[in-house]
Amino acid sequence: MRFTRRELLAGLALASVNAVFPVFSSGKWPASDLRINPERLRESLEGLSVYGRPTGGSFADGVSRIAFSDADIAGRNYVMRRMREFDLEPRVDPAGSIFGIRGGSGQGLQPILFGSHIDSVPGGGNFDGDLGSMSAIEIMHTLKEHGITTRHPLQMVIWTDEESSFAGSGAAAGVLQPRDFDRVRNGISLADNVRKLGGDPARLAEARILPGTFCCYLELHIEQGGFLSKANVPIGVVEGIVSIDQYDVEIRGFANHAGTTPMADRHNALLAAAKLVEAVQDVVTQEPGRQVGTVGKLEVFPNAPNVVPGLVKHSIELRDLSAEKIARLADQIQKRAQEIAKETGTEIIVHRVEHDPPAVAAPEIQEKIEAAAAGLGLRTMRLPSGAGHDAQMLAKVGPIGMIFVPSVDGISHSPKEFTNWKDCANGANVLLQTILLVDASST
Amino acid sequence: MRFTRRELLAGLALASVNAVFPVFSSGKWPASDLRINPERLRESLEGLSVYGRPTGGSFADGVSRIAFSDADIAGRNYVMRRMREFDLEPRVDPAGSIFGIRGGSGQGLQPILFGSHIDSVPGGGNFDGDLGSMSAIEIMHTLKEHGITTRHPLQMVIWTDEESSFAGSGAAAGVLQPRDFDRVRNGISLADNVRKLGGDPARLAEARILPGTFCCYLELHIEQGGFLSKANVPIGVVEGIVSIDQYDVEIRGFANHAGTTPMADRHNALLAAAKLVEAVQDVVTQEPGRQVGTVGKLEVFPNAPNVVPGLVKHSIELRDLSAEKIARLADQIQKRAQEIAKETGTEIIVHRVEHDPPAVAAPEIQEKIEAAAAGLGLRTMRLPSGAGHDAQMLAKVGPIGMIFVPSVDGISHSPKEFTNWKDCANGANVLLQTILLVDASST
Repeated sequence: MRFTRRELLAGLALASVNAVFPVFSSGKWPASDLRINPERLRESLEGLSVYGRPTGGSFADGVSRIAFSDADIAGRNYVMRRMREFDLEPRVDPAGSIFGIRGGSGQGLQPILFGSHIDSVPGGGNFDGDLGSMSAIEIMHTLKEHGITTRHPLQMVIWTDEESSFAGSGAAAGVLQPRDFDRVRNGISLADNVRKLGGDPARLAEARILPGTFCCYLELHIEQGGFLSKANVPIGVVEGIVSIDQYDVEIRGFANHAGTTPMADRHNALLAAAKLVEAVQDVVTQEPGRQVGTVGKLEVFPNAPNVVPGLVKHSIELRDLSAEKIARLADQIQKRAQEIAKETGTEIIVHRVEHDPPAVAAPEIQEKIEAAAAGLGLRTMRLPSGAGHDAQMLAKVGPIGMIFVPSVDGISHSPKEFTNWKDCANGANVLLQTILLVDASST
Repeated sequence: MRFTRRELLAGLALASVNAVFPVFSSGKWPASDLRINPERLRESLEGLSVYGRPTGGSFADGVSRIAFSDADIAGRNYVMRRMREFDLEPRVDPAGSIFGIRGGSGQGLQPILFGSHIDSVPGGGNFDGDLGSMSAIEIMHTLKEHGITTRHPLQMVIWTDEESSFAGSGAAAGVLQPRDFDRVRNGISLADNVRKLGGDPARLAEARILPGTFCCYLELHIEQGGFLSKANVPIGVVEGIVSIDQYDVEIRGFANHAGTTPMADRHNALLAAAKLVEAVQDVVTQEPGRQVGTVGKLEVFPNAPNVVPGLVKHSIELRDLSAEKIARLADQIQKRAQEIAKETGTEIIVHRVEHDPPAVAAPEIQEKIEAAAAGLGLRTMRLPSGAGHDAQMLAKVGPIGMIFVPSVDGISHSPKEFTNWKDCANGANVLLQTILLVDASST
């Protein structure tokens, strides 16, 4: 059954005056009245926040729930307890991701997949990943308590280690190979870490989600940037996850005595680097758009106050939804680098070390998110995701969509990360309504 | 007995046709014919170069004769053996410096002091310090073998640890106090290190050379910069040792996600630092002169490719013979820093952490060096010393003069440091002739 947008909006408007209880059991009617329980969602998030909280701290002190740590394992156990409270039986896949499945009424329909992650960066906040994860559980609970059965099976997921390796979603999308699990970090291999979660790296092939085997993947997440917060718009419709290119730059000058080397005779690698840092800023900001360019890491050699720097190594990172735009900006930066090298008597080598292509959100899903938000009376804004998400892995094997809610002042990866509870509930409701719209419209 | 410059030059010209042997024994005549033995000087330098030479290396591989190391102690023993070869008895003062005294014929005249150091930086060359030290010994030997007795006593010195603490010359000038010898480096105090050399830090007061107790201090050294090498001038007459001011700069921005923070919303500490590095270059080079300004050390926090830098700490070092000029340049840099802070949304704190005043060479000694060089048919150039030397300590207690010889391509503090043997001999001869001129003219 497929609605036109006009029919849909009319239906939503009508439905909004109806009672909450199970009147739409199998996609015969848009489920516009169905709402998640905002108190229960908040309780879930606060409950989860305990695992990895700084000793003696409160919710406001954020969380360090590094993947595979004791805090992560405790958090995962909490998540699985929450799932079981409403008879959703958790299943851990070979990569350690936690799945929960609810059957559908339709025949041979593919599952709608949705979820996020609960691991955090060190000194992170209580919303990044957590909101999408706990909202997925909350949606399953809401459907259960209202006795609603969708046509499609619904599959919620908490992916393993989003913040560092994308172990869960990367394995599902076939981006990570068994050899990637041999990589050792802090003295322990990813394979051994995954085993700590109850995964089984030897059976990694079984974690694969093959193209054409799922309806779509949906993820609710905090924006982590400041577009929504600044514009005071409650719902962001993600156009895609940006392409990220990373470059290593090596600037070779000549180290010399800072007291005895006249200014004109210097081959100062740091002076060249300074000009290049400014050039990156100029090139990236000289045309309109949301592209960003960052020199975040820079090291000077020999790095002594009384020595003219002979060598500088630094990174350049460029992000935009358009890989073509990034390539064009990189060309301009490369050109400027060679002019600077000439001007400063140095040699500058720019070398691309990483290329993540963009992950574009399916246009029809973007429209459904907008329709769902409109049905809830919530304004939306389309925007790219500058940060990486599990959804970018899933984009390699099927259609994806992402819903953003505002992150106050755009702060994330910080204990100061905060999203208003009202916005959390709005996001979860938009995710729920989007699931129902997809369920209603997809064959 | 004092010569006018004209008389002096005439005397030198006359003397140059005379025989080498002891015709001027007590300052009655300018000793223009007297020459050091260039082969013996080279032999001395090559002999010393063995101590601290990289295993399996040759003279061209430079030296690591760090003060107080076994190599330094072996090098000092070599120096003392060389001194004794011509009956010059070495004496180690409480700060570990090695002195050798030759009596004068005059009544109550103060000694003429000259020398340098034999410690090196790690991976240094065979001329920095060594040339002045071995030339001092060579001059003593030359005078001895020619049976010449000067009016003034002559006192040669090899100072302790020039490269790091100025322990020897600093103690002599009273700049270093007993408490400075308690400072621990690599797990051992300076006092214990000095004891290893046969010094006695408990008797440090006896190492003092009080104002008015010496005629002057003369030091021959390689230039370490490229002025003489570039201009092809064999002798540099040092106007003084530059003033050095060092500043610590702290730039406080706001660390944020490089993917999600729009360019316009950043408070990028590294962008501000880049602008300040360029500002230092601009301010220092915008007016004529030999001033130099260097940002040699710079650190970025948190220093990750995907994080907008929130904090940068860096040094600024300014050098010039004029302390007033340095202060003026620093004011301009401070002003630019505040403009940059405003422009980039950062806070910039510039804090002076070191102030070494200039050490001006006595004008009458500069003239004597020029006269000595002229007598030897050598062109001279006046120039500042951008590097620090033991002479700057002695300048606090009496008149000093420094003779520079060219350092090929201005390279120093490197195994590639090299001074042509002809230039070494020229430098030693200019030092010898300067000593004789001072001896002849001073009361």
